[in-house]
Amino acid sequence: MIRMLGVDPGSRVAGWGVVERTRQGALRLVAWGTLRPRADASFPARLRTIHEGLLEVLRAHAPTAVVVEEAFAGLNVRSAIKLGEARAVCVLAAELSGRPVHELTPALVKKVVAGHGQASKDAVRAAVLRVLGAAADDAVPPHDAADALALALAAISRLDVPEALRPGPIGRRGGRRRWTLEDIERLRGPR
Amino acid sequence: MIRMLGVDPGSRVAGWGVVERTRQGALRLVAWGTLRPRADASFPARLRTIHEGLLEVLRAHAPTAVVVEEAFAGLNVRSAIKLGEARAVCVLAAELSGRPVHELTPALVKKVVAGHGQASKDAVRAAVLRVLGAAADDAVPPHDAADALALALAAISRLDVPEALRPGPIGRRGGRRRWTLEDIERLRGPR
Repeated sequence: MIRMLGVDPGSRVAGWGVVERTRQGALRLVAWGTLRPRADASFPARLRTIHEGLLEVLRAHAPTAVVVEEAFAGLNVRSAIKLGEARAVCVLAAELSGRPVHELTPALVKKVVAGHGQASKDAVRAAVLRVLGAAADDAVPPHDAADALALALAAISRLDVPEALRPGPIGRRGGRRRWTLEDIERLRGPR
Repeated sequence: MIRMLGVDPGSRVAGWGVVERTRQGALRLVAWGTLRPRADASFPARLRTIHEGLLEVLRAHAPTAVVVEEAFAGLNVRSAIKLGEARAVCVLAAELSGRPVHELTPALVKKVVAGHGQASKDAVRAAVLRVLGAAADDAVPPHDAADALALALAAISRLDVPEALRPGPIGRRGGRRRWTLEDIERLRGPR
């Protein structure tokens, strides 16, 4: 059994989502949510809210590992610093709770979950809900939480794939083969 | 009495320095040091080392407040994210220990401590040691720690100056008057 916590960091909203692969091989949505510091809180207090909220999620859902989004494309220097700040308090929470921390780029996550690296947020969310078999009357996660679930799904799939079939180092561009959840399911064969 | 902890964040080396202004008005160097995570440690482990090292400094020296360098000029996006990450675990340590957190730009610190915003690292260190009256046989702090001491000195001076004489909001550019420790000492008059 692998239980993965995905984290989409941000200093205004941080999304999180927990996905597990059962021993029988099924993918299951465990929980998702968002951490929203008060808009009028000081910057240090906002970082604390995200850090402590994530510690609480780690205690409540006891994931095997954590995956944090690794983004830098399209940022200016000020927003890069802000993103780094939000990322760090998430990574620190995972490290303090003793979980291994993985990182994946948004493009790779989109490619794995929705089939191509430029998929829209709506397409990513639809793919996540389809793969996890969400029922029609389930609550629909906001984009931040859906992105976190997509991260968790992509990281689980990545850990699952035999080394020889993996598409190369994280963040490598222009990989030769499309690598999707469907490919992985096919490659894994019947269970 | 004000006791200020200055922090110059970095993911390879973080410098810190503690300065106090006694009730009699004298500036005193309390302690300084650097936090150096092992070069072969994982990124989450490096963040943890800096965070926990700073918590230890906060416990040991019980500062009244903390000032963290606020830099963004001249960075590319990747190094901005790294700096944001290092900053966040320092700010979080101060917040968790209940201390107010201030931020000052390097240019303002240099201007206050060494007389102009483009002062060299050597000039900043020399000014810090002169103001703090370091004896010739004292250990000389490395630049990271000297920068942290300069931050602490500038922040103490800033808190000390009557509101009307302060040079404007933090980070404001092109202030009309040079604002140095010597100015402040003169403005404060005899004690």
